[in-house]
Amino acid sequence: MTAEAMRAAMQRYIELVDAGDVDGILALYADDARVEDPVGTPPLIGRTAIERFYHKGLGRNKVHAHLTGPVRVAGNCAAMPFCIELEWDGQPCTIRVIDVMEFNEDGRFQSMKAYWGVDNLELR
Amino acid sequence: MTAEAMRAAMQRYIELVDAGDVDGILALYADDARVEDPVGTPPLIGRTAIERFYHKGLGRNKVHAHLTGPVRVAGNCAAMPFCIELEWDGQPCTIRVIDVMEFNEDGRFQSMKAYWGVDNLELR
Repeated sequence: MTAEAMRAAMQRYIELVDAGDVDGILALYADDARVEDPVGTPPLIGRTAIERFYHKGLGRNKVHAHLTGPVRVAGNCAAMPFCIELEWDGQPCTIRVIDVMEFNEDGRFQSMKAYWGVDNLELR
Repeated sequence: MTAEAMRAAMQRYIELVDAGDVDGILALYADDARVEDPVGTPPLIGRTAIERFYHKGLGRNKVHAHLTGPVRVAGNCAAMPFCIELEWDGQPCTIRVIDVMEFNEDGRFQSMKAYWGVDNLELR
């Protein structure tokens, strides 16, 4: 897989989160992928768990997402800084996240790790 | 270790890279730490290899570094986007990097992974 294709997949992921397109997001993942969001919490493994996670996160209210810097491609991995805007208990807020994806040989996400903590959550 | 102390260590690392202070940088690392810079290249393991890496990178010419977004602390890890300004074959350039550090129980870096590729290198 080329660096250009990996960068495109990362950008597409942010567009799909912004659009709330869970099916589109799942199509980027390997069937046996592993999601840790945020890092330090128990990982979700496999399509069913990952689908439930995105439906819960994106299903309830409108979420906006946009990159806040360029995608970094290194080896079979890529990292990117981005912003998520959503409602948290009815309060509009912004979360600043860094996602790191590992790609498999088919060009799909084998793992996703989301780095963010309470200090990255800002009320608007 | 608190999230605040982890964030402070990440910010301190960038200040020390900016100052070219290799001894200060090494003091942030565990003795048996692992550095992969960029991700996808063979890892450097242990103080001697890591010291050589920073002397090579920071010793030859003035390097500047600054954060381009907030530190994200998650579990025992932290990630941050930053810029490195240096000379590459005599040509001033900027590299946009994301570093991910894993902390040990003593609050030192057990591992560092730097995500960047040729597409993140801009001539100035």
